[in-house]
Amino acid sequence: MESSNGAEILVRTLLNGGVDVCFANPGTSEMHFVAALDKVNGMRCVLGLFEGVVTGAADGYARIADKPAATLLHLAPGLGNGLANLHNAKRANSPIVNIVGEHRQGHKVTDSILTGDIEGTAATVSDWVRTTTSADNIAEDAAAAIRHANTRPGRISTLVLPADTAWSQTNVDPAADFTPVLSTMPSAEKFSEAVRALRSGERTILLLSGRALRAAPLENASRIAVATGASLLAQYANGRIERGAGRVAIPRTPAPVDQGLAVFREARHVILIGAKVPAPLFGYPGKPDWLMPPEANLIELTSDTDDLEAVLQELASCVGARMMQPHIENLMVPAVPSGALTADAALQAVAALMPENAIVVDESITAGRSFFPISRGSAPHDYLQLTGGAIGSGIPMAVGAAIAGGNRKVINLEGDGSAMYTIQGLWTQARENLNVLTIIFANGGYKILKGEMASVGAADWGARAERLLSVVEPEISYVRLAESMGVEAAMAQTAEELVRLIRYASALDGPFLIEARIQ
Amino acid sequence: MESSNGAEILVRTLLNGGVDVCFANPGTSEMHFVAALDKVNGMRCVLGLFEGVVTGAADGYARIADKPAATLLHLAPGLGNGLANLHNAKRANSPIVNIVGEHRQGHKVTDSILTGDIEGTAATVSDWVRTTTSADNIAEDAAAAIRHANTRPGRISTLVLPADTAWSQTNVDPAADFTPVLSTMPSAEKFSEAVRALRSGERTILLLSGRALRAAPLENASRIAVATGASLLAQYANGRIERGAGRVAIPRTPAPVDQGLAVFREARHVILIGAKVPAPLFGYPGKPDWLMPPEANLIELTSDTDDLEAVLQELASCVGARMMQPHIENLMVPAVPSGALTADAALQAVAALMPENAIVVDESITAGRSFFPISRGSAPHDYLQLTGGAIGSGIPMAVGAAIAGGNRKVINLEGDGSAMYTIQGLWTQARENLNVLTIIFANGGYKILKGEMASVGAADWGARAERLLSVVEPEISYVRLAESMGVEAAMAQTAEELVRLIRYASALDGPFLIEARIQ
Repeated sequence: MESSNGAEILVRTLLNGGVDVCFANPGTSEMHFVAALDKVNGMRCVLGLFEGVVTGAADGYARIADKPAATLLHLAPGLGNGLANLHNAKRANSPIVNIVGEHRQGHKVTDSILTGDIEGTAATVSDWVRTTTSADNIAEDAAAAIRHANTRPGRISTLVLPADTAWSQTNVDPAADFTPVLSTMPSAEKFSEAVRALRSGERTILLLSGRALRAAPLENASRIAVATGASLLAQYANGRIERGAGRVAIPRTPAPVDQGLAVFREARHVILIGAKVPAPLFGYPGKPDWLMPPEANLIELTSDTDDLEAVLQELASCVGARMMQPHIENLMVPAVPSGALTADAALQAVAALMPENAIVVDESITAGRSFFPISRGSAPHDYLQLTGGAIGSGIPMAVGAAIAGGNRKVINLEGDGSAMYTIQGLWTQARENLNVLTIIFANGGYKILKGEMASVGAADWGARAERLLSVVEPEISYVRLAESMGVEAAMAQTAEELVRLIRYASALDGPFLIEARIQ
Repeated sequence: MESSNGAEILVRTLLNGGVDVCFANPGTSEMHFVAALDKVNGMRCVLGLFEGVVTGAADGYARIADKPAATLLHLAPGLGNGLANLHNAKRANSPIVNIVGEHRQGHKVTDSILTGDIEGTAATVSDWVRTTTSADNIAEDAAAAIRHANTRPGRISTLVLPADTAWSQTNVDPAADFTPVLSTMPSAEKFSEAVRALRSGERTILLLSGRALRAAPLENASRIAVATGASLLAQYANGRIERGAGRVAIPRTPAPVDQGLAVFREARHVILIGAKVPAPLFGYPGKPDWLMPPEANLIELTSDTDDLEAVLQELASCVGARMMQPHIENLMVPAVPSGALTADAALQAVAALMPENAIVVDESITAGRSFFPISRGSAPHDYLQLTGGAIGSGIPMAVGAAIAGGNRKVINLEGDGSAMYTIQGLWTQARENLNVLTIIFANGGYKILKGEMASVGAADWGARAERLLSVVEPEISYVRLAESMGVEAAMAQTAEELVRLIRYASALDGPFLIEARIQ
């Protein structure tokens, strides 16, 4: 083929590897990549006005598309701005290919103002980091980045791209062959250990996360539970759960430490399938670091690279459950609420009105804690959560989920405190006319921290602390915020108003924001 | 003394060390520190709704107060969100003491969701990092953090505070004695080398940065120039320049690479005083990595820890210039502009109307490039710049500068693209009723990148690239954005409107934002 520059080879390699969406916040060192995006057809480019929007969108995209998007970030500070949502993405096992522009090789020795430690910054949230050193290597390096991102259960690759490797010419072709994604299975001994526990007659919890929470594997998990009397439980935080009517319902481990301990108290065996050892979100004075009783038997059935769907099918066979009827939820939506707009009334309205096949992005923190039980029999939907605890995930995740979801309605349940971290994402929703309904649970502050002050034994606080825990004085108008960035918005102060606005927004094919003033 | 918990000892040590402002964005692991802020009097606590606001405010505070503020950040992701403005602060030599909350020691082994590599993240932007291991060590560790921050020329300390060290009791007293800040001087040989160059009769540039750009040392620099015929030049990016009427004017190295090369082309000697080797901001195809001609004589007169004021005084003595009259600017403000609102008309309005002793925070990127010459004879003011190129610095820096500046008016010249990175800082301006006038130069996009596309030889771009370089579609209303967060705001579309609004805002004792629609 004719000679191309490295940036064009990179774009063609990404496209050949199935990476056809690029969330970008470019700077000078990425200009040739931007030019290549222009020259080569096939890449959807989505601008974020802040890098946290870019990385959070890539996370949301990966959760729905089950494949990586690329991000385009500018040097170490740009990557730094994207770290928090890469942290969340890593904990969701979302595959992502980060492209981070770097100074021309050699330019770094002059320590010009944007010079920083890109690899060191990337290492804290990436599973794979490489700096490409020549336009001739870009095809191979980009293919490796894609391959690593697609390695089960989904990983974060960061490819650092010095500007001269992007602008130099090369005769090397873009990579075209991509290794299929391999998966593994637990050993026969591991299966035997799990089967012994399941057949022991003692209390056993199947603790699930990752791909085990999709509809088909959940049916097998339910068959196992029906056959053996085991309980199903999901991790507290999960990248994606397929749930609602026609699917198996699974409760999640509660966030408050005492409730978490109570759920595991009677367990004699805990079998992990894609899940981590259950732990409280934080360490508290006088509380244990594990939620399981120390004497319980922990069976880590799966490893990272296992095919969780196949594991649950195999485990169902082992316990003779393949022919059992799984416990499937019937469609049973709550009544539309009326009267005072409490948090639960707002959740009830969403559970009652959400359309079939919606994607729910939940960063409502305290306000949304009842959504899971309330929406158990709602129309079938995907449920995406804040997985890493780094708030500022919801608005960007909704961006990415909407782009991956095509015409699916995305409903973002968003805390007022957390909304402010990456509020710029609303602008991208407007620009791309994304089908996102954002509901801000406006309760005036970091309500979770007020609970946490008590949990750590610092319950009695005064004015200086209060000012660090509330976001009133002045009150924020989320309606004006949204409108300033081109997103239509309105306020709801009663349940009836919220219901009316959800109905209105459901009919739109574009973004809308409701500021729900929670009482 | 009676037993206190570690958090209280930390707050008392900070106060004893002169650190009496804390910019905070706390989470669960910092609740005891928040409680201690409540219990111990004397710390001004300022909430930022995003960590980039917190670290940028600490940067602005340090530039004006010449001492560190504390930041309070939540685990690795919270620190990550603050990295970009720590990068800028580091390049401004701003002293900062970061306090980063960490899980209880031992809790990390469970890998709960917010677990991350705090020290690894901090290392990329800190000069000193330590994790405290016991409440008994906190006084000593915090004193070391303050000492390192105050080391010339101003450094970034990061103290990681596991939750249990904050909540545990200790009988160790808060630290009370703080080592005075030491400084060094260049060797006699270095001075001789500089003097030889200055007396050579060949073209010599004194390239200054850091504390050399304060009013008094600039007078000595001017005396040297008058006595020897040397030229004065400031680095492109500097933390703070004292300038305007009654002070010595110094030009800055231009940002565009060709202009930068032109400034140095004739130089035979370049003497660095607090400055780095002059380099283009980026590497470009076919352009050198240094701005100086390769044959010029580079004299690195000062080291990091030198007292730059004393160096300039000594150098003036060495060349017999102590009695020379420095070249002082007379008060000479431009006329107030009228007609079309161009970028230069807007800058002229600011230069004409700014009150005495104002603090100008300049993150206007391309739009503000003429501000420096236009305001040469304006009322005396401090000029604070984006030092690290990581945009999103201006609005937070204005927060910190206003808090350090007391009643001084802060004028933030802000690009529309860069404003969106840390727009949440406006809320803190409203809450603290800070004396900040923000002027948004609304030109619809990342104008600098359009110039850079051409500089790197990718001048000819199409629709996909254009969408990555502009922030219109939809247009952002900065007026509504500001109002949504409690900041009064208005739009100016002509020079007359801008002049009227600047006059109105000058009389306010609180924040105001002007959206200047630049033609």
